[in-house]
Amino acid sequence: MKIGVFDSGVGGLTVLHALLRQAPQADYIYLGDTARLPYGSKSQATIARYAVSSAHFLVEEQGAEFLVIACNTASALALDAIKGAVSVPVLGVVETGANAARAASASGDVLVIATDATVQSHAYSAACRERGLRTYEKACPLLVPLVEEGWITHPVTQEVLRIYLSELKQEAGAMQMSPDTLVLGCTHYPLLRDQIAHIVPDLKVIDSACVTAEQVASTIHDKKATGNGTRRFFATDSIEKFRAMGTRFLGEAIDGVTLVDLGG
Amino acid sequence: MKIGVFDSGVGGLTVLHALLRQAPQADYIYLGDTARLPYGSKSQATIARYAVSSAHFLVEEQGAEFLVIACNTASALALDAIKGAVSVPVLGVVETGANAARAASASGDVLVIATDATVQSHAYSAACRERGLRTYEKACPLLVPLVEEGWITHPVTQEVLRIYLSELKQEAGAMQMSPDTLVLGCTHYPLLRDQIAHIVPDLKVIDSACVTAEQVASTIHDKKATGNGTRRFFATDSIEKFRAMGTRFLGEAIDGVTLVDLGG
Repeated sequence: MKIGVFDSGVGGLTVLHALLRQAPQADYIYLGDTARLPYGSKSQATIARYAVSSAHFLVEEQGAEFLVIACNTASALALDAIKGAVSVPVLGVVETGANAARAASASGDVLVIATDATVQSHAYSAACRERGLRTYEKACPLLVPLVEEGWITHPVTQEVLRIYLSELKQEAGAMQMSPDTLVLGCTHYPLLRDQIAHIVPDLKVIDSACVTAEQVASTIHDKKATGNGTRRFFATDSIEKFRAMGTRFLGEAIDGVTLVDLGG
Repeated sequence: MKIGVFDSGVGGLTVLHALLRQAPQADYIYLGDTARLPYGSKSQATIARYAVSSAHFLVEEQGAEFLVIACNTASALALDAIKGAVSVPVLGVVETGANAARAASASGDVLVIATDATVQSHAYSAACRERGLRTYEKACPLLVPLVEEGWITHPVTQEVLRIYLSELKQEAGAMQMSPDTLVLGCTHYPLLRDQIAHIVPDLKVIDSACVTAEQVASTIHDKKATGNGTRRFFATDSIEKFRAMGTRFLGEAIDGVTLVDLGG
């Protein structure tokens, strides 16, 4: 089975990393729409336009038979648009994250950290509400640049995490919530998972990359779909930057990135 | 005289802020290409394509008679492309910054802080070399997100500034330089000018927004050009975000932002 994995940048490679461990036999096509990133600061109309053209590329031009939207912003703001634009099954990280939160939470109160646009879309709140959960979401716009600067275990990053997570708990407490689960609502955040878990040991941390890979692996298994274990990478901007930065997110070397022009 | 001011986002409003103080009688058209920001992480080809389409909009559709490229990344990577694409005078913040550094430096050794793409272009080094200066440039990719988070006087920002500026001085010292001048090579940085000057009191801090405005005001004065003091604002993404964030950069309320689609 040929699986298309889409993100605005390299963050979705954390999802591909998890997929390669859980379903290594499938064929993967990864597209990072790096010329138009970050989606997180843009409007819904713009994000939907970008995401649909990216989905078209993966399905129509590259033959993907299953589409993983490994971008929280696009999943939050453009999932219906993408599902309407392509004829293959589409799975977004927001719904898999909400499913995992439902399975993990005993109190029914869930916290989410994400980019500005994901939070403003309230997509996690809506997906969690459908599953009987109460949710409090907080935007943490400094975490992506800190990860991209490579300051994964840096004292400044620990301080920023402490500030954001302390504010998050205070704000949830003020709303009389008793959260026991924290969803990492951005594909960059799995690289900070250990530090986050250390700061909030009382919360179960849901890594959307891992839980999305689990759901894809289960779908593949159900369909008894196999493949040749190929991987292809596409980026809409500098392939050198994609390769250099992407290696950190994928956790292994990235060979043969192809530049593709989706307009814009 | 109708002056077009262009930036990838709201940062260039620090240049407009300086322009409004130094040449309030001119007519200003500001374009923030917010749908395609940030330019700082993109390749030269992509940046040139975006900047030329933005310049076309300001000159051909809006009638700008003078173009200020209030975006260090576009000035560094696309100034020649822009000058080749429009028929009006074009002034970029890199050349005005280099002029001011030449006037300020006694030792001839100049430091520059900027985004990744500006530094990798070595445009400041080239412009300073033409003026007989030695330059050391450092990318400080966390400063833009910290300013946009509103953490202008936050302890985390002070710590990040101390780290970047201390590394900058060490790296320049290892190259046997004796710098006496620091150019703020990004239009977001003027908001951090006071903190930066406090951390490096031995350096003259060049604020490219101020020095660009001085040069434009001088050109207007030479041409005895007047105007009606009008201001128009255009953005390629959410006008609400542009207005909200832009007010901080312009230092006054922004009325009547128009959404424009430049493609992409």
